[in-house]
Amino acid sequence: MIVKRGMNCQFAFSGSKKDFMLASSAIFRRQQFLIRSLGSCTNQTHQKRMQGTKALSGTSLEPDAEHILRAITPTLDRNKHKGMAGKIAVIGGCREYTGAPYFAAISALKIGADLSHVFCTKDAAPVIKSYSPELIVHPVLEESYSVRDQDKLSISGKILAEVDKWMERFDCLVVGPGLGRDPFLLDCVSKILKHARQSNVPIVIDGDGLFLVTNSLDLVSGYPLAVLTPNVNEYKRLIQKVLNCEVNEQDSHEQLLALAKGVGGVTILQKGKSDLISDGETVKSVSVYGSPRRCGGQGDILSGSVAVFLSWARQHLSTAEGGTSISKINPTILGCIAGSALMRKAASLAFQNKKRSTLTSDIIECLGTSLEDICPAC
Amino acid sequence: MIVKRGMNCQFAFSGSKKDFMLASSAIFRRQQFLIRSLGSCTNQTHQKRMQGTKALSGTSLEPDAEHILRAITPTLDRNKHKGMAGKIAVIGGCREYTGAPYFAAISALKIGADLSHVFCTKDAAPVIKSYSPELIVHPVLEESYSVRDQDKLSISGKILAEVDKWMERFDCLVVGPGLGRDPFLLDCVSKILKHARQSNVPIVIDGDGLFLVTNSLDLVSGYPLAVLTPNVNEYKRLIQKVLNCEVNEQDSHEQLLALAKGVGGVTILQKGKSDLISDGETVKSVSVYGSPRRCGGQGDILSGSVAVFLSWARQHLSTAEGGTSISKINPTILGCIAGSALMRKAASLAFQNKKRSTLTSDIIECLGTSLEDICPAC
Repeated sequence: MIVKRGMNCQFAFSGSKKDFMLASSAIFRRQQFLIRSLGSCTNQTHQKRMQGTKALSGTSLEPDAEHILRAITPTLDRNKHKGMAGKIAVIGGCREYTGAPYFAAISALKIGADLSHVFCTKDAAPVIKSYSPELIVHPVLEESYSVRDQDKLSISGKILAEVDKWMERFDCLVVGPGLGRDPFLLDCVSKILKHARQSNVPIVIDGDGLFLVTNSLDLVSGYPLAVLTPNVNEYKRLIQKVLNCEVNEQDSHEQLLALAKGVGGVTILQKGKSDLISDGETVKSVSVYGSPRRCGGQGDILSGSVAVFLSWARQHLSTAEGGTSISKINPTILGCIAGSALMRKAASLAFQNKKRSTLTSDIIECLGTSLEDICPAC
Repeated sequence: MIVKRGMNCQFAFSGSKKDFMLASSAIFRRQQFLIRSLGSCTNQTHQKRMQGTKALSGTSLEPDAEHILRAITPTLDRNKHKGMAGKIAVIGGCREYTGAPYFAAISALKIGADLSHVFCTKDAAPVIKSYSPELIVHPVLEESYSVRDQDKLSISGKILAEVDKWMERFDCLVVGPGLGRDPFLLDCVSKILKHARQSNVPIVIDGDGLFLVTNSLDLVSGYPLAVLTPNVNEYKRLIQKVLNCEVNEQDSHEQLLALAKGVGGVTILQKGKSDLISDGETVKSVSVYGSPRRCGGQGDILSGSVAVFLSWARQHLSTAEGGTSISKINPTILGCIAGSALMRKAASLAFQNKKRSTLTSDIIECLGTSLEDICPAC
């Protein structure tokens, strides 16, 4: 298989079974990198796709989320190797917060990703590791309190080198769960974001990652593989920063569309009673009922879920025939719809069992059954 | 009972019930050591056995794994003491990886070993200990970042002395799960491997241990009690290093045979759709269907399982009558067949329950039931 800049991206993924055999090899990783490097090409193709989609999907705001979930979830095949169902990395976890990155990373595994990494501070690592032996936890980040001013430059360089070693292997990054707001740490994460973008690795940004990018919009602006997942307050700050106005609940769809367009076509998943999703071209809504419990951590499940489904959607689109309705939709939108719908279904199931005592871990335990209900493994 | 070099090894194990009474005593440990010291004798006997086996088993590639499991799994007997069902040690676990050594060590216990140790770095130890109070975790290894150049020699000596204190007690070492690739640490592990070999302790080598021995083949070359368990990429590197060619999928059996012979008759368990096993004399395959999930950590279960079954196979062969078909098979091959078959059965069972959300811990929870199905405890 030959991959060239400017060629048809669909072609670059042809012969998928053979490609899969190479999945964990350096050659395959390099190919994946080259394919990601064709992001701009994909995006142009996507722009054309979108024009078709609007005509095709008309004004249908609420997509058939279950159909999307079934379409993009990969079949389980005994010929596949470790890593081919997705390799996710969470950048988050500091002295103060350790639960959030764990929730995001373990959710990715429970949905069906093969490998889930966490890059966190040295203090947070032993704790996150102790939550689950299933995660690969890298104690590489540093907060200001542990770094002298004169060492900041060299330590920052080392941190970046540590993350870079792994960057090309990842199908998606989740940046923000439990990241905290330490200035030195956020400065390092800014650099990680720039490198991820250079390598065309998709990025889901949540929590303190949203605090970072709201203050430095250029980190994500114009990057079509970025997904922001703001809650009510994070959305409010984004609106104020980008559109310089207040949230308008009457024209919520138009405002979200304008916001996504304002950040250069990133995809935004606005969490709420219904989740609204836009990439600046179209708006979709996921309203399936979840749970009335609002315990902390549910957003972390969502970010991990979106990361997996976004990876799967890109894999699906790279191998699928071009003629289906789904193949015309932006994979970041597909990932958000699937992640939101599954999270809501799992929350609903957990609430049926646990009622007021439902916690985030209970919802995570329902992710597998919920996906199985929609899309049986075999 | 008198044990002499050069005597029939079978005889050295006669009167097993009486010997078992001595199991945890220093005398018994010394006897075990002497018996292991007769490895070369065992191996010569084994060479003769193998000639018989080929005639006996003909070209049967797929052995009756359940029959082997039943034959080598020791009966549970109230007269036995702690340690007699197996004492396994995992050498692995560093700042970055803690899940892998835990998976290998806990799998050994869940199958039925009596004691499971982990020798890991000081950073990794508290985390691995926190996964389970069942393991004995020794925080003895060091990585370069925590050792000054001028201290390396003395620290290396101390590490070796710490491990040596225990070496003769172990029925099998598992070297590599979550070991990492720190040069100082790998240098220490090379020395541990040499000592294990001098003491005739069987060694299962996986993960980063394979990285080490592929670069220093003399560590295992010609050692009949070494088992290598490479995955696709690790196998590729071994083939390139030993046979100086690429993997040939058409002649996979012949190539594996040549590889095992090329490393001086070590046993190689090539993991894949079917697991292929060879000691350079024969090739066996385990194809019983497992699970299509490829989450990280399954290789660690396998290495822990092979370690237990290899120990049990040696114990069985030391006490069994010589006339059975199983008693003619290399115990490392028996251990690999049994470990592979049980791992696959457990993975299949876990997948039935958890489908896409199956994680390595779920498979470990099915090891006991899977073995009980094949070989009821009583």
